[in-house]
Amino acid sequence: MRKTSHPCPLIAVIGGSKATPEEAAAAETVGRVLAEGGAALVCGGRGGVMEAACRGAKAAGGLTIGILPGADRVEANPYVDVSIVTGIGLARNAIVARTAQAAIAVGGSYGTLSEIAYALMFGVPVVGLGTWEIKREGHPPAPIVYAATPEEAAAHALALARRGE
Amino acid sequence: MRKTSHPCPLIAVIGGSKATPEEAAAAETVGRVLAEGGAALVCGGRGGVMEAACRGAKAAGGLTIGILPGADRVEANPYVDVSIVTGIGLARNAIVARTAQAAIAVGGSYGTLSEIAYALMFGVPVVGLGTWEIKREGHPPAPIVYAATPEEAAAHALALARRGE
Amino acid sequence: MRKTSHPCPLIAVIGGSKATPEEAAAAETVGRVLAEGGAALVCGGRGGVMEAACRGAKAAGGLTIGILPGADRVEANPYVDVSIVTGIGLARNAIVARTAQAAIAVGGSYGTLSEIAYALMFGVPVVGLGTWEIKREGHPPAPIVYAATPEEAAAHALALARRGE
Amino acid sequence: MRKTSHPCPLIAVIGGSKATPEEAAAAETVGRVLAEGGAALVCGGRGGVMEAACRGAKAAGGLTIGILPGADRVEANPYVDVSIVTGIGLARNAIVARTAQAAIAVGGSYGTLSEIAYALMFGVPVVGLGTWEIKREGHPPAPIVYAATPEEAAAHALALARRGE
Repeated sequence: MRKTSHPCPLIAVIGGSKATPEEAAAAETVGRVLAEGGAALVCGGRGGVMEAACRGAKAAGGLTIGILPGADRVEANPYVDVSIVTGIGLARNAIVARTAQAAIAVGGSYGTLSEIAYALMFGVPVVGLGTWEIKREGHPPAPIVYAATPEEAAAHALALARRGE
Repeated sequence: MRKTSHPCPLIAVIGGSKATPEEAAAAETVGRVLAEGGAALVCGGRGGVMEAACRGAKAAGGLTIGILPGADRVEANPYVDVSIVTGIGLARNAIVARTAQAAIAVGGSYGTLSEIAYALMFGVPVVGLGTWEIKREGHPPAPIVYAATPEEAAAHALALARRGE
Repeated sequence: MRKTSHPCPLIAVIGGSKATPEEAAAAETVGRVLAEGGAALVCGGRGGVMEAACRGAKAAGGLTIGILPGADRVEANPYVDVSIVTGIGLARNAIVARTAQAAIAVGGSYGTLSEIAYALMFGVPVVGLGTWEIKREGHPPAPIVYAATPEEAAAHALALARRGE
Repeated sequence: MRKTSHPCPLIAVIGGSKATPEEAAAAETVGRVLAEGGAALVCGGRGGVMEAACRGAKAAGGLTIGILPGADRVEANPYVDVSIVTGIGLARNAIVARTAQAAIAVGGSYGTLSEIAYALMFGVPVVGLGTWEIKREGHPPAPIVYAATPEEAAAHALALARRGE
């Protein structure tokens, strides 16, 4: 059977449902550059960093997918094209991480940390922008690529997602 | 905040990962008519009825979303545009049902029955085509709309999804 | 490595979170007879049929396990010994079905139907007591054992759970 | 309605399915001291740290609950009394964290990190023993209590679990 190619890589932007103005601006730029680079955006579908990233992606004509924790599509931010209504609460963080071919963490709190952990578990490349640093004595360093700017973060993720295809 | 309208209703086609030739033909027609009617198709992303429905939708230029049970996007059929890689096994049936604005069951076994049950639980309209009949003494009849042809099934689902918007 | 034997078979009682007096009385008897027969009770942990079954099991000194849909153990009924707090909503129905070595459905609505469907999918024996009847043309009859009394339902489930060990 | 008291607090031990001899010894001591302190043990039900903790708990006559990722109870380690067969893969980490009244992380890799993150998200107290350290600039320090010995870790967790009751 012919396997048609995926129309575009899926790249996750993960981060808090509340964002500082700086985080929101960074996420919006990340979303825009990902869309310009031909990626579809996957995220948790809510506000804050997720909404800013979706807004950026839509401004560049990209496709946005929101994997919602709750039971109703109305909780999606207004820039989500496709709402996946999981109803499984924060266990949906595992799905966001698995679905992506690379993930960019922008700021974030413990939810973001769980998504970073899942991505690392599943072998999904992780790019960090002002986010968690983790270490454990005796454990190899986590392969998180830290970026200094949103443009750099998006470029890294696009390259890493394409390498995995 | 301005709520942009969903680009199109999401309609689920549910059915077995193995299909008889008749079921596959019916599912393909359903997928095609849904796409012609402006709906995006959501399904479990695997073979059988799901693949036939996706093939029909793609033939008409529609968008197809596969909510996969396993841990790898390669299990998606070749007509899935957006693969949601849940990794949660058959518990993903709840997500397929919640994500849809209407669902069409084509044939199917117990997995399909679970998705019908979830859709009924969540108030998602269900259209049946050669699928389960259910009854319980003392319980109101389940509001499943049985259709005689794939065209009729798709038309019912399109009307029901729009009514709920 | 020595595999210690499971202390007792786990048998699920599934049914509505609201119950008629007759259903509650039946579920309580089922719970009591299961505990007398040496089984631990697994259920969704909420009210109605679940609570009545747990009350019956505790009256006979049995162990009760509630697999809760929500995010807080306070939603467990007062007769649950071990609360599993899933937070995954009604997708937890798949876990109730998988965890059991046999399941008894008492009355119930669409949630119960989803659990019956999952049990049938997973090869878990199902005993029905005043619950759903399902059929599909061209599909083999579902192997649900219908019982006439709670005592008979519990006896069937105990025998079926032991056969699978 | 009378709310019967929970028979005992549930405390999670989280850690890798492979363990160094030192980690296994620590986990076994943790499990034993928790059981001596009257707690039931909840864990992911597999090998390594989870198995060692269960072995310790059983040696002291405690109750052990394994929340398994896979679809079959045979994957439980031999010291699990109650197997919860989730079938939802590593999304079950959210359930382990939610179900516990306190959690002790022993060593561990990214799976353990995800459970730490979930526990912090859900407000479940976390005790660390040779495990991850996390920090993010601008984020308050994570309230993880680091212990120097297994006895100290178990004592902290028992105290923290009781405080939350």
